[in-house]
Amino acid sequence: MAHVNRDKKKLLSRVRRVAGQVAALEQALQADADCSAVLIQIAAAKGAMHSLMMEVLTGHLAEHVVAERDEAVRIRETATIVELLRGYTK
Amino acid sequence: MAHVNRDKKKLLSRVRRVAGQVAALEQALQADADCSAVLIQIAAAKGAMHSLMMEVLTGHLAEHVVAERDEAVRIRETATIVELLRGYTK
Amino acid sequence: MAHVNRDKKKLLSRVRRVAGQVAALEQALQADADCSAVLIQIAAAKGAMHSLMMEVLTGHLAEHVVAERDEAVRIRETATIVELLRGYTK
Amino acid sequence: MAHVNRDKKKLLSRVRRVAGQVAALEQALQADADCSAVLIQIAAAKGAMHSLMMEVLTGHLAEHVVAERDEAVRIRETATIVELLRGYTK
Repeated sequence: MAHVNRDKKKLLSRVRRVAGQVAALEQALQADADCSAVLIQIAAAKGAMHSLMMEVLTGHLAEHVVAERDEAVRIRETATIVELLRGYTK
Repeated sequence: MAHVNRDKKKLLSRVRRVAGQVAALEQALQADADCSAVLIQIAAAKGAMHSLMMEVLTGHLAEHVVAERDEAVRIRETATIVELLRGYTK
Repeated sequence: MAHVNRDKKKLLSRVRRVAGQVAALEQALQADADCSAVLIQIAAAKGAMHSLMMEVLTGHLAEHVVAERDEAVRIRETATIVELLRGYTK
Repeated sequence: MAHVNRDKKKLLSRVRRVAGQVAALEQALQADADCSAVLIQIAAAKGAMHSLMMEVLTGHLAEHVVAERDEAVRIRETATIVELLRGYTK
């Protein structure tokens, strides 16, 4: 997972931002915040999770598929990714 | 947001579980974990966020629409929810 | 489903547009069109399906929940809708 | 788009099934069918569209990325796909 190493700082800062959004959400629930505001916060945190997914997927494809010289490995890695994407949304 | 108060304990425990998933994700990235495993963890955390969204939405509908006696308020609250759902997914 | 009757023309024109998109997709596949173009067409047709879903949901909520005087019916209809939304996306 | 040629029969039969679902939906709206039933039909047609997307994506990756010998082409094709997936869901 060298690409993650390469992009590690960027991904870690992104995942920490998501952690911050979840912490803010917990506080909003604790403070009995307005319900629509809470729904908007949840939707935003879920959207940030999707962006993170796309970021990790991009790095994964770049290293294990695009840059991979062995076609057998490319086949295997691509199958894993498609399987993941199939169940990722509806 | 009395329904959130009523279900507060349940929702808070759910949001803390999501926070735990995001923390585990940060550790996996720090530890250069296997990339497919990371993608699976992100997908799971995103799914947990969706379940939380549905939980808060259920409580919101129950209190501000179903139990609401004033039809004008029901109209307003429903419009807000539909607007939210429209942009929530694709 | 009187709201659908009321909005019937609008909904029917929308569903026919989706049918047109699916027919164009079939032609593109028949004509061995460029693959990225096909993927974009599929994504667009899926998006149109989501808009239709939101349109029918809006009418359904308006009639069977918002305008419904019997709270027991509002409870039942809302439960059905939340159940549907839960499995609608991830 | 040779992979689509290869899988053409399979994809065409799938897209025709979606067309059938959309036609059934139009009839249901025409016949003032029960609203929940209509919502379930729309969700099913949208799900079929997602399966079709995954099918075309699988073939596209297999041919233009996995089997592609030129790394520059693999880079370009993968970038297009990631861009598409980014906006495909939320």
